Amino acid sequence: MGITQTDSGICIKGFEAAGARDKENEKYGLSLIKANKVCAAAGVFTKHNLKAAPLQVTKEKINSKEGIQAIVANSGNANACVKDGLKDAREMCEKTAKKLGIEQKHVAVASTGIIGRRLEMEKIRSLIDQCSENMSSSPENSELAAGAIMTTDTKIKEYSIEYKGIKIGAIAKGSGMVNPNMGTMLCFITTNAALSQETIQIALQSAVEDSFNMLTIDGEISTNDMVLLLSTQEKECRPKDFQKALDHITTEMTKRLAMDGEGSTKYLAAEIQGAAREEDARKAAQVIVKSSLVKTALYGENPNWGRIVAAVGSVIEMDCSKMDIIYETPGRKAKIVEKGMPRDIEGTRKVLKNNTIKIIVDLNEGEEEAIAFGCDLTEEYVQINAEYN
Amino acid sequence: MGITQTDSGICIKGFEAAGARDKENEKYGLSLIKANKVCAAAGVFTKHNLKAAPLQVTKEKINSKEGIQAIVANSGNANACVKDGLKDAREMCEKTAKKLGIEQKHVAVASTGIIGRRLEMEKIRSLIDQCSENMSSSPENSELAAGAIMTTDTKIKEYSIEYKGIKIGAIAKGSGMVNPNMGTMLCFITTNAALSQETIQIALQSAVEDSFNMLTIDGEISTNDMVLLLSTQEKECRPKDFQKALDHITTEMTKRLAMDGEGSTKYLAAEIQGAAREEDARKAAQVIVKSSLVKTALYGENPNWGRIVAAVGSVIEMDCSKMDIIYETPGRKAKIVEKGMPRDIEGTRKVLKNNTIKIIVDLNEGEEEAIAFGCDLTEEYVQINAEYN
Repeated sequence: MGITQTDSGICIKGFEAAGARDKENEKYGLSLIKANKVCAAAGVFTKHNLKAAPLQVTKEKINSKEGIQAIVANSGNANACVKDGLKDAREMCEKTAKKLGIEQKHVAVASTGIIGRRLEMEKIRSLIDQCSENMSSSPENSELAAGAIMTTDTKIKEYSIEYKGIKIGAIAKGSGMVNPNMGTMLCFITTNAALSQETIQIALQSAVEDSFNMLTIDGEISTNDMVLLLSTQEKECRPKDFQKALDHITTEMTKRLAMDGEGSTKYLAAEIQGAAREEDARKAAQVIVKSSLVKTALYGENPNWGRIVAAVGSVIEMDCSKMDIIYETPGRKAKIVEKGMPRDIEGTRKVLKNNTIKIIVDLNEGEEEAIAFGCDLTEEYVQINAEYN
Repeated sequence: MGITQTDSGICIKGFEAAGARDKENEKYGLSLIKANKVCAAAGVFTKHNLKAAPLQVTKEKINSKEGIQAIVANSGNANACVKDGLKDAREMCEKTAKKLGIEQKHVAVASTGIIGRRLEMEKIRSLIDQCSENMSSSPENSELAAGAIMTTDTKIKEYSIEYKGIKIGAIAKGSGMVNPNMGTMLCFITTNAALSQETIQIALQSAVEDSFNMLTIDGEISTNDMVLLLSTQEKECRPKDFQKALDHITTEMTKRLAMDGEGSTKYLAAEIQGAAREEDARKAAQVIVKSSLVKTALYGENPNWGRIVAAVGSVIEMDCSKMDIIYETPGRKAKIVEKGMPRDIEGTRKVLKNNTIKIIVDLNEGEEEAIAFGCDLTEEYVQINAEYN
């Protein structure tokens, strides 16, 4: 019995959700997620030195281990680097608790958007009112919740699965300013796995390490990003099975984030094989998806493998004459470099005409592997970010 | 008596130069610089783990301390990650030595261009012939030498000064793939300062640390980059005075490199003031000029100070509520943030209409300062690098 995709989104049994956009200023959106009981809750937070107000509030609640029953999340404003940030974040929790008839201490809060401007609390209050009156466990409401936290995202990111009776659903947002330390990325995950808070916290950290933390859109870190996991603890299961299902869902969500990179036309996975040390494999995979020169060459469908070598060699010691480089797209692959010598340039050009590209670098030094996720760099990325305000 | 600019370029007394481009393939160019005696020589080299063949050859010669009398440098091909790289780099030295009538061990070699393709040695040989027959100490020949090593550069980078009888001249190339570890940047400096090899080596390292190593165009490191300094040792001087003149020239050359960043429309200097530790000041200044979001906002003349805070906070601990941010252009400045609160947004918009911008972030935590150099990120950068082959 393998992992099967379901259509619940985050609205797996025991959860309901809603999402809405402000009518005057479409940049402001708000989502609510609510469980029918207080859930065991785990969280992973940005490594940025400035932690936005909602992050501070939510982290404290996760760390208290008293559990979470609802999440309130807004787009349009990050509530970061502003004087009354903590006050506003707490008010969001209080208002949500009151409207949903639960305790304030069981409400987590998240924000995404511009930094340094105060939240327009009137809009937020009105959106909480609206959402709380429209809660439902329908897949459509999961989609509304996923849609309302989008900023420059062009696609809704939502995914849900079942594996040995374990149900997991997830929504996420993020397309620019995403990097290995989870810049402006929010992901909310719901599950029924009957595991302890400690167990799901460790599982979430492990899953994030190999998925969201290996994702780069433009190399920026954000002040606001978090992954939250809520469990109703209703389905007995083995931690190993839960980890497998959770890894699957975080990797799938990471791919969706990468595919929706700001202005991107191509999705890129960089896989390092044959590294002497795991740390080398991770660093080398990440530097490929971070390199502006690799990303622009990908955009130009330009088989410039020298840029891959230059990127990898900038972070780890390597022997050019041992290295193989392969370009892959579903149904086609080409070995552009074999033992340091150029080979199938024409085949690589054909692979590059597709929009899902994997670059495999085999260092032939050891057994360690890693994959990083990203996208190309385009004129549109520049346009979006020159104008975004 | 201050530092005065001269018009010699690298052809200060005792030096001659030449430069030429291949007629069939304009990407190939070659420059020769020759002194009338064996010079004391210092060098600073890329920190990239893959050191290109010419770099290995030249580094060995600098380290031997036997002195350098000539430099041969080509553009169009980096001679990196190729099987016969060392053989070809050595042949360049031998051929140059023969044509100039000097010893092979006194010839330094440098290359810049595409990685992973073998040098077209026929072109190189013919260009060495051409240049060696056209050596001259005229300022025009310094310019020819500066021009022949250009790749995607749009402007010749050349500068020369005199200070208390110390003469210094420099040429450089570099516009993309330049970062704090000196990606694809070449700079050749000539002087008459009568100081020991050890003294000029230390002086060069110190000068590079605060200039070229604080420069970022696109965050890439290259396999090939070097700064070489040759001295005829003819003018007695104090090391302190030489350091001052050398710092001046490397900073000026760094600004010229930044102003010619690939596709850039605006030059950016980021100055950190009031940092608690020097290391913090350097890291924070560098992260600003590296940030794709700061660079695109600059291009869009967008006073988005949140991106500056996000960048700085991603590398050092900081207190938003203490921080001031000032935008400056010659003749105008605007304080956009004072003690963490937004102030003169409109004034900042006016500053941003200019093409020479300094962003000053005062952390108000201590006394340490640092400046980093860079430019904006534009659609044209993406176009250049999607197509470059």
